[in-house]
Amino acid sequence: MTSGTGSAAAALVEKHRPTLDRALEAIRSREFWSPHPEHPKAYGEGAAEDAKAAFDALRGSRFELPGQPGSGGWTATETSPYGLEMGIEYPRTDAAAIDALLPALRAGMPAWRDAGPEVRAAVCLEILARISARTHEFGLAVMHTSGQAFMMAFQAGGPHAQDRGMEAVAYAFEEQTRVPAAADWEKPQGKRDPLRMRKEFTAVGQGIALLIGCNTFPTWNGYPGLFASLATGNPVLVKPHPRAVLPLALTVRIAREVLAESGFEPNLVALAAEAEGDGIAKDLAVRPEIRIVDYTGSAAFGEWLESHALQARVFTEKSGVNSVLIHSTDDYKGLLGNLAFSLSLYSGQMCTTPQNLLIPRDGIDTDAGHKAYDEVVEDLGQAVGKLLGDDARANGLLGAIVNDAVRERIEAAPSLGEVALPTREVTNPDFPGATVRTPVIVKLDAAKPEAEAGYLSECFGPVSFAVAVASPEDGLALLRRTIREKGAMTVAAYTTSPEVERQVVEACFDEPAQLSLNLTGGVYVNQTAAFSDFHGSGGNPAANSALCDGAFVASRFRTVEVRRMA
Amino acid sequence: MTSGTGSAAAALVEKHRPTLDRALEAIRSREFWSPHPEHPKAYGEGAAEDAKAAFDALRGSRFELPGQPGSGGWTATETSPYGLEMGIEYPRTDAAAIDALLPALRAGMPAWRDAGPEVRAAVCLEILARISARTHEFGLAVMHTSGQAFMMAFQAGGPHAQDRGMEAVAYAFEEQTRVPAAADWEKPQGKRDPLRMRKEFTAVGQGIALLIGCNTFPTWNGYPGLFASLATGNPVLVKPHPRAVLPLALTVRIAREVLAESGFEPNLVALAAEAEGDGIAKDLAVRPEIRIVDYTGSAAFGEWLESHALQARVFTEKSGVNSVLIHSTDDYKGLLGNLAFSLSLYSGQMCTTPQNLLIPRDGIDTDAGHKAYDEVVEDLGQAVGKLLGDDARANGLLGAIVNDAVRERIEAAPSLGEVALPTREVTNPDFPGATVRTPVIVKLDAAKPEAEAGYLSECFGPVSFAVAVASPEDGLALLRRTIREKGAMTVAAYTTSPEVERQVVEACFDEPAQLSLNLTGGVYVNQTAAFSDFHGSGGNPAANSALCDGAFVASRFRTVEVRRMA
Repeated sequence: MTSGTGSAAAALVEKHRPTLDRALEAIRSREFWSPHPEHPKAYGEGAAEDAKAAFDALRGSRFELPGQPGSGGWTATETSPYGLEMGIEYPRTDAAAIDALLPALRAGMPAWRDAGPEVRAAVCLEILARISARTHEFGLAVMHTSGQAFMMAFQAGGPHAQDRGMEAVAYAFEEQTRVPAAADWEKPQGKRDPLRMRKEFTAVGQGIALLIGCNTFPTWNGYPGLFASLATGNPVLVKPHPRAVLPLALTVRIAREVLAESGFEPNLVALAAEAEGDGIAKDLAVRPEIRIVDYTGSAAFGEWLESHALQARVFTEKSGVNSVLIHSTDDYKGLLGNLAFSLSLYSGQMCTTPQNLLIPRDGIDTDAGHKAYDEVVEDLGQAVGKLLGDDARANGLLGAIVNDAVRERIEAAPSLGEVALPTREVTNPDFPGATVRTPVIVKLDAAKPEAEAGYLSECFGPVSFAVAVASPEDGLALLRRTIREKGAMTVAAYTTSPEVERQVVEACFDEPAQLSLNLTGGVYVNQTAAFSDFHGSGGNPAANSALCDGAFVASRFRTVEVRRMA
Repeated sequence: MTSGTGSAAAALVEKHRPTLDRALEAIRSREFWSPHPEHPKAYGEGAAEDAKAAFDALRGSRFELPGQPGSGGWTATETSPYGLEMGIEYPRTDAAAIDALLPALRAGMPAWRDAGPEVRAAVCLEILARISARTHEFGLAVMHTSGQAFMMAFQAGGPHAQDRGMEAVAYAFEEQTRVPAAADWEKPQGKRDPLRMRKEFTAVGQGIALLIGCNTFPTWNGYPGLFASLATGNPVLVKPHPRAVLPLALTVRIAREVLAESGFEPNLVALAAEAEGDGIAKDLAVRPEIRIVDYTGSAAFGEWLESHALQARVFTEKSGVNSVLIHSTDDYKGLLGNLAFSLSLYSGQMCTTPQNLLIPRDGIDTDAGHKAYDEVVEDLGQAVGKLLGDDARANGLLGAIVNDAVRERIEAAPSLGEVALPTREVTNPDFPGATVRTPVIVKLDAAKPEAEAGYLSECFGPVSFAVAVASPEDGLALLRRTIREKGAMTVAAYTTSPEVERQVVEACFDEPAQLSLNLTGGVYVNQTAAFSDFHGSGGNPAANSALCDGAFVASRFRTVEVRRMA
């Protein structure tokens, strides 16, 4: 697992090895750790202004990727959910460009493999360090493609995404170094001389990895697969969502710069931008050269990939229906505040946002007395209303609606049931073009068959259902069924009963799903922390893998053994 | 990851923890280790006679599996390749039986999960220990289903298979315990109180695992998947090959006994025997309850599984075309002897047996002078002839032809090209009904397009091709192409040239394949040692996984996190 790398790569190892070791410690202890500051001020004076200038310079210009072969012209597909003119043109990857790109990606593989896991990890950490230094610029890029409010785009698109990328590098390094570089094997043969063999073990990549990016979290959902593949020796072709190109295009450009400076082929990371409607993900995903696919997006295309890209290892995060079982609490106010925040954050446009609130029809016991179903729903609506009552605060939490499909879902919500909390249009004084909407809560009765059409489908966006269930047992049964049939990225429950808690835990073990219990403070069900929390379980239909575990990295490379007589 | 298990399970942990620790050390160092003796005498006086009596008692009787629900009558499908009457009837698993079996398998899962990785490992090691104690009986069972000669059946079907099972248990344990059982997470919040969470992590199985066994190595190829799935919390339904039921039926019965004695549901391991032609593997593999499939067998059905059992993680070992590049040697005699043995062992009926011998048309340089292509082929034929000249020795090495398809392939070999070494019928005085054949070597010229039909198809059995190539470079190119298009479980090469060696290594890195270099002694390309050698790479079409690495176990379970405010 050694390398013939030059001094540039050696210097990166020296620079980043302590961070790698700290990351390895973090994934083993699962205690809090992050090397990436969350506070914008931590990035130095003038960082915000410099980023703004850099971002404005990108807008309306051509995004060059020097040395990347095979462009089929230029394409501009982004429009900011805040109404800001983007007009950034990217090299368009058409069919001819694909044919030129794939061999270029593959060409760098042998030297990248020979560099070994430690150098690859160090190069990946250098890429992340340079991304980190430009976090303000990434914040703007994520904000104006996803519609996240700036602070969230800054944090989730910056340090949190970088954490997830580094976590993947740590897992990849650990997995590749579980086997020694070489072993001397000596097998006794009774009175005869022992058999002696010298065995060498080398981690080799599978081939070109394809990253299919998403619109809402281009970096947070993209970095784990990108860095897991790169760190395990695979070139990575990045196919961003046409409406969220910039954050990944910046990432690709930085990766190419670092690769070139470290003496590697920059085409180990390349961008495949497309015009709206080109649909190159389908063409790329089934190419024999593509051996790994990472995807975040709709269940329909995720399932298509799983059943068609059979030549590749396919890692998918699709869609799910996240439930909260509300049985009882000793902090009713805390419950309301915590849930109100979870429903509001980024207008519920997170794969982890709760959708179904399962509430017994007879109500729940709380520290503020028994609360009827109607009361709970009304109180939750009021908590949301209070949280978002101030427009400035509402804009800071909600961000903008990412696309028309989400807006239409909000508008269609009243057709599904009785509206307990109507949506409200919020004006964004900085960006008058932004579509900003507060969450809508719809009442559904699980006893009515027609209600299933609501609560058993994903309704991505700020729409949640207060589902009246006959009993906690019925709520648990519905929770299980929802995870099994529709998948869930998150499950939450509120209960003071050890028995109900036991049953919810059991359900989340049986239908593997990640569970948050009795959250009433500053941690929310829709947020996970890298190095400690798993994102998704990989054991239910919402995702076939978790961020990040051994399974996420282990099949991205193979260990080739060369054995000789000693 | 602790458990509410009783004293029986605790005693097993105490008994087997030192062995588990030793196995964990072995998979990290990859040095020689095995707890399972290879020599028949190591199993105590009278072991062979007791085993013979036990085996004879099984023949012509009903194989009961007390407590396993859902039998659809009885079925007997085995005939010994040695002509011995088997007549063992197994409970037949028809469609109705499947419906009864699957819930019974699933029912034991929660307690098995709650037991935790250490208890599960200890129970698995107890199963292996009881199998080990009956190695002589397994030797006979493997011999009379696979056709392996007794000593090979004893070793490969006994200690070597048990080693591979234990290796999988060690990998499973290590993978499940990379995350702590619990973590306290504390995130600083500037001047405010830190956020504090208590997080618990539990390894949970994916669901029922299906093991589809093979005819030639029922235990060696079956144990890794069986024990990897069981150790990671999954019930296992064992569907043996209809002609090799007994070795796995004995395994299932022992597993059920150990599970019951340790306080677990015996139906966590069950047998699904079928009548010839029932084809239940297809029905089972796509059932939603089946979440893991392990398969060894034909490429056609392996590919069907990969493209149809989309609800499951599918681990396949299919078929390949193994090549040996013969460029030069400093031990010509050693080369000939080593290759002759590899071609002869178990009549070439191993997925690891070399098929294509790639030899430059101009011949090779050796310590015994330059040898022309024709000379090399003739010398190899003579080496095989000499090795198998004595019938007793030939019977001990060759075993019996496992089925008519292999026999027909031997008989058809002359139609493919010029026969350099004809096959010879050998009489087995102990088993006159056995079909015993020595290997056939056929000359092919890579320059002739029609030769491809020979060397680019798997010809499973004792048929190999001496393929004349224009140059070492052409041989390397053909080697690469063969791995990429047809897959390879093994690659071997003989060369004294560092440059050619470098190129072969490079080819095996690029098209991931396991490489043995210049084997001239008592280690053969078709043999791998558990805890040290990888079997298959999982990176070429011959197999999508390797025995055994992190990827083989990591996706068989999921880690469920339960987090609460601290």
